[in-house]
Amino acid sequence: MSSETIFSKIIRQEIPAPLLYQDELVSAFRDIQPQAPQHILIVPNKIIPTVNDVCAEDEQALGRMFIAAHKIAKELGIDESGYRLIVNCNRDAGQEVFHLHMHLLGGAPLGPLLAEALV
Amino acid sequence: MSSETIFSKIIRQEIPAPLLYQDELVSAFRDIQPQAPQHILIVPNKIIPTVNDVCAEDEQALGRMFIAAHKIAKELGIDESGYRLIVNCNRDAGQEVFHLHMHLLGGAPLGPLLAEALV
Repeated sequence: MSSETIFSKIIRQEIPAPLLYQDELVSAFRDIQPQAPQHILIVPNKIIPTVNDVCAEDEQALGRMFIAAHKIAKELGIDESGYRLIVNCNRDAGQEVFHLHMHLLGGAPLGPLLAEALV
Repeated sequence: MSSETIFSKIIRQEIPAPLLYQDELVSAFRDIQPQAPQHILIVPNKIIPTVNDVCAEDEQALGRMFIAAHKIAKELGIDESGYRLIVNCNRDAGQEVFHLHMHLLGGAPLGPLLAEALV
């Protein structure tokens, strides 16, 4: 479950995806299939497959993702208009890459939390 | 912008919303208008109005929200089937309460990231 994904190669810049942010704990780059005018992925540099795999020592890196999100949103000029941060875990949420990642979506009104209320 | 909301009263248990989780940094309780079979809100105990207001000293509390999310998902029996974590910031994302909060949604397939691709 903790094997490398394409995200590790991007973090190490072994494939040419421009980084919007990188520090010792997290990295950020554009989603290749954007779902909104701005769609960025923010990831811990450490391989954490899913939210089910987080542990206390990861707290700083996980918190740092929000710091990075704000910095990126500000640079993109969408911090005041607004943005949504989404982390999917496993099948029901549609997680596709098993390296924990936060979607940053913005640049337009994003609609409700889910496509339809499921209750 | 950093005035108290209803969430501070829930954190202090001045209004009777059952807490699903609480520690020195974060608290969790059910959304009163659930959008999925399981819909929990996880909040830092400290008032941080939006993601635009996070600072380095908040990293541990922000990271702790993921630890809490995993614990709650496991208790609810949705950790393996999956769940989605969402944090909305400002108007385009539909943020309604200005005390940063993470939605934990699960208990059914949740559909795409957004109601429709906006690109």
